[in-house]
Amino acid sequence: MKKYNFNAGPSMLPREVIENTAKQILDFNGSGLSLMEISHRAKDFQPVVDECVALFKELLQIPDGYSVIFLGGGASLQFMQIPANFLIKKAAYVNSGTWAKKALKEAKLYGEVIEVATSAEANYTYYPSGFEALVPADADYLHITTNNTIYGTQLRKDPCVAVPLIADMSSDIMSRPVDVSKYTAIYGGAQKNIAMAGVTVVILKDDMLGKAPRTLPTMIDYRTHVEKGSMFNTPPVVPIYSMLENLRWIKKNGGVEAAAQRAQERADLLYAEIDRNKLFHGTVDEASRSWMNICFVMNDEYKELEKTFFDFATERGMVGIKGHRSVGGFRASCYNAQTIEGVEAFIAAMRDFEARY
Amino acid sequence: MKKYNFNAGPSMLPREVIENTAKQILDFNGSGLSLMEISHRAKDFQPVVDECVALFKELLQIPDGYSVIFLGGGASLQFMQIPANFLIKKAAYVNSGTWAKKALKEAKLYGEVIEVATSAEANYTYYPSGFEALVPADADYLHITTNNTIYGTQLRKDPCVAVPLIADMSSDIMSRPVDVSKYTAIYGGAQKNIAMAGVTVVILKDDMLGKAPRTLPTMIDYRTHVEKGSMFNTPPVVPIYSMLENLRWIKKNGGVEAAAQRAQERADLLYAEIDRNKLFHGTVDEASRSWMNICFVMNDEYKELEKTFFDFATERGMVGIKGHRSVGGFRASCYNAQTIEGVEAFIAAMRDFEARY
Repeated sequence: MKKYNFNAGPSMLPREVIENTAKQILDFNGSGLSLMEISHRAKDFQPVVDECVALFKELLQIPDGYSVIFLGGGASLQFMQIPANFLIKKAAYVNSGTWAKKALKEAKLYGEVIEVATSAEANYTYYPSGFEALVPADADYLHITTNNTIYGTQLRKDPCVAVPLIADMSSDIMSRPVDVSKYTAIYGGAQKNIAMAGVTVVILKDDMLGKAPRTLPTMIDYRTHVEKGSMFNTPPVVPIYSMLENLRWIKKNGGVEAAAQRAQERADLLYAEIDRNKLFHGTVDEASRSWMNICFVMNDEYKELEKTFFDFATERGMVGIKGHRSVGGFRASCYNAQTIEGVEAFIAAMRDFEARY
Repeated sequence: MKKYNFNAGPSMLPREVIENTAKQILDFNGSGLSLMEISHRAKDFQPVVDECVALFKELLQIPDGYSVIFLGGGASLQFMQIPANFLIKKAAYVNSGTWAKKALKEAKLYGEVIEVATSAEANYTYYPSGFEALVPADADYLHITTNNTIYGTQLRKDPCVAVPLIADMSSDIMSRPVDVSKYTAIYGGAQKNIAMAGVTVVILKDDMLGKAPRTLPTMIDYRTHVEKGSMFNTPPVVPIYSMLENLRWIKKNGGVEAAAQRAQERADLLYAEIDRNKLFHGTVDEASRSWMNICFVMNDEYKELEKTFFDFATERGMVGIKGHRSVGGFRASCYNAQTIEGVEAFIAAMRDFEARY
């Protein structure tokens, strides 16, 4: 039976990306060696890294003066690496969800942290607004989390602030256009929209580096990786290669503008069904609804059917649809590789299930 | 033409490990999803991590009271993570090569560092001996690098010291038996003997954790990863899976005892040829010769033939045989997956080349 992958991350990837990666694992570029066993210093691997950087710059229209690096360790490591490199005295954070809160917590080790806005009191069911005006003028930076994977809220505009702007875009990077010139740093684990798990992307404004008043461990200092083009130590070779295949796929399919259009189309279909269906309701304020993670629960009067619907949808091929325990219910994650076919299969399951009750 | 992979890392892996990984990338356990797109929280992935831990404990006979965790970021990140977690006041380091020196440098950020022994004055051509007696009794730990990838020296015994012992085994982990009970921590990038690049293994003595007098960033504190069984954040799923396939292969082929036997056999053959052949000589003192990285150069009178031999061997299928720029000449890296056939092909190339001059 055909499976429809709604995993929140690691998550669905385009079939051709999967097949091309498997092929290179069997024989990398006809070299007779596997992608798993080539040296990162091999002359055939440098072009992989170079093309990834070039595609990042092209697809996100990254201006001159920015570097793109690929690290291991996950976005969670960035929660400490960002303040270690950028926090001088005081930083402002928007606490819009679980991951935002984790980022904020790590920053406290490096200086004063101002929570300029939060939706914690409403279980993060909306994206805080008006936070731009609340950022202290002397903050070293404002940190935002553009998409909240667990709660299904998203900020799809680039905030306008007078201080340096830093964003965790782990769950919506490369799914929509971004004005990179507004940011000092953008980072994201790649395992949602752009690669298998194991690589983290960081986009950095070069002239903002090296200002923090502390001696950094070599691996924590972004300059180490910028100067060595992500080759200071052995990078995660296969995850990076899978990212290259993904970036090529994104480009071939119309870039981030087309990706955003498809994301909106998928999300609109699903939210419309959630709003229409008598069994379900969305958990997020309409204005904050994410295109990436679509969260909904059963209406109170049908609450006891939750497990039954989960089994019903699973039998029809839906995978990874359980909501995070902080929200409950269901979550359909629709990253770049998600298809209209998948969304329609999910909607059909919701309709057919409704017809029974 | 058949290729013989002598890369220093990432490096040769058993063909069945490569093929099984490629197969799971196309369809993971018959789930209809790729290994690249499954959730790390999926019920099929936890058994992968559990089996990796169990095989580590079985193959290295790790006693009770130790944890095995899998991290991203590479062994280079461990250079700061080890002192961050274990250095209270003073640590002792053996400076036996480039990576040992890098580890020592990072430790200085966290306290006093005593270089108890070094072979730097001889371009690291031997492994320092007698260092055990030079370790201060009040050192928080002694740090050693058991195999020096660049210089081709190795310490194949577990040193006996009165302070906690910590070892970087990046380039010889799982290639020989180790008495883990002698160590407080053992770590290693997996991309040489046990996996594709992208995962780092850390073996930790549980009751030694949490003693350092500093607040650690969450991701830097080993307890985070021990408590969550390497699942605090998204782990590198595919690299970990490739490690599982490798550990199974090691077990099937007789465990680390048999791996050590094969390593010695390969190394003995190559060193014998280096010693016999009139064109070459080894760069390392005999007592310190590594079984993993076999380094040699052309004798002075044949120095101008270096490039010619490199091309000659390359044409016969040898890959990754260039010595590191700090040593020059040639390096044949012979990790777990290296075959006698590969070593014999290299030796035949050396002999045939010699016959021409």
